[in-house]
Amino acid sequence: MLRGKFITFEGGEAAGKSTQAKRLAARLEGAGLGTLVTREPGGTPLGEDIRGLILKDHPQEPVTELLLFAAARAEHMTSVIRPALDEGTWVISDRFMDSTRVYQGKHYRIEREFISQLEKYTVAPDYPTLTLIIDLPAEVSMERANTRGTLSRYDAARLETHQLLREGFLEIADSEPDRCVIIDGMLTPDNVEAAVWQAVNERLLAKVL
Amino acid sequence: MLRGKFITFEGGEAAGKSTQAKRLAARLEGAGLGTLVTREPGGTPLGEDIRGLILKDHPQEPVTELLLFAAARAEHMTSVIRPALDEGTWVISDRFMDSTRVYQGKHYRIEREFISQLEKYTVAPDYPTLTLIIDLPAEVSMERANTRGTLSRYDAARLETHQLLREGFLEIADSEPDRCVIIDGMLTPDNVEAAVWQAVNERLLAKVL
Repeated sequence: MLRGKFITFEGGEAAGKSTQAKRLAARLEGAGLGTLVTREPGGTPLGEDIRGLILKDHPQEPVTELLLFAAARAEHMTSVIRPALDEGTWVISDRFMDSTRVYQGKHYRIEREFISQLEKYTVAPDYPTLTLIIDLPAEVSMERANTRGTLSRYDAARLETHQLLREGFLEIADSEPDRCVIIDGMLTPDNVEAAVWQAVNERLLAKVL
Repeated sequence: MLRGKFITFEGGEAAGKSTQAKRLAARLEGAGLGTLVTREPGGTPLGEDIRGLILKDHPQEPVTELLLFAAARAEHMTSVIRPALDEGTWVISDRFMDSTRVYQGKHYRIEREFISQLEKYTVAPDYPTLTLIIDLPAEVSMERANTRGTLSRYDAARLETHQLLREGFLEIADSEPDRCVIIDGMLTPDNVEAAVWQAVNERLLAKVL
């Protein structure tokens, strides 16, 4: 059996990632492919507990948070993502390693070399095949974070933060064009869905269907 | 003010580490030095929660457990150990990074390079000044683990495991003789205490008192 493909959605807050993950899964199911939608942080009972622990204990150090996310990712990969891919299931994750590169690397300035090492031990060799980066102007991200009431996290009350995060995702897309596609998050949800589907068709389905 | 010294106790299970940590602290206090006794895993509210989470969720992957211990250590170092050292307090930890090298590295065969990277980002530059390795024959470690009812952890029911762990600690002592002192754990607690005190005097106190 063909191994499944691993697709991730990335981008700032409230860009529509989880909605689009579900819509893509429905389209893939319609094409006869088995899918699994998951998310980070979370994805496993341990991952959900780690998510709760971060909110409860407020780690003082960015490195602590980085390591907790890495632990959750190791478990997510080993017990959920990799077994699904092995069974031929297409896995769609709402956030994955690029969020770590951007939030912990770009925003908290943790060395890229260390983050790459952690990827090597938690993700390799199953790096995402395709990453859809839903891009929004910083002003819109901040406004949406405001509406969601999540301004307390990641200094989300500052426009500069949203600009930095956006730049981080765009830099990843720029440096890994074979893996990443930028999707304009200002489109309507239906049009984002269509753009996602087009990217999946061009990058992946043309090769397997 | 002089910065405090960082002393760790290492070795297999039930070697008397926590008892000796307390006795050493009492002796140092008697010499007029401020001390703090702590332990791993644990040492902070987050660390204790991580300890509970490992017991509850049973991570499937050795790497997951390694990263959780590393996260706890980052927080322990930043919020407890380093501030105490900065204030001139002598810090004594019941287990620290060598337990990770031995349990996760030697027993679970996680690459030494990765463990060193994690040390670099969670411990450096405050590596322990002195490490007291309380050494016991494998048969005795296994018997004591049996008495404690902790056989379920780390394949502790197998004599080979205890042999491997013991070798791991002895190898560290061999490779870092300036930092490590091996203490014979078969001595009576009073004699272990005396041997510890002699090591602390020779290695550290002769230079500061």
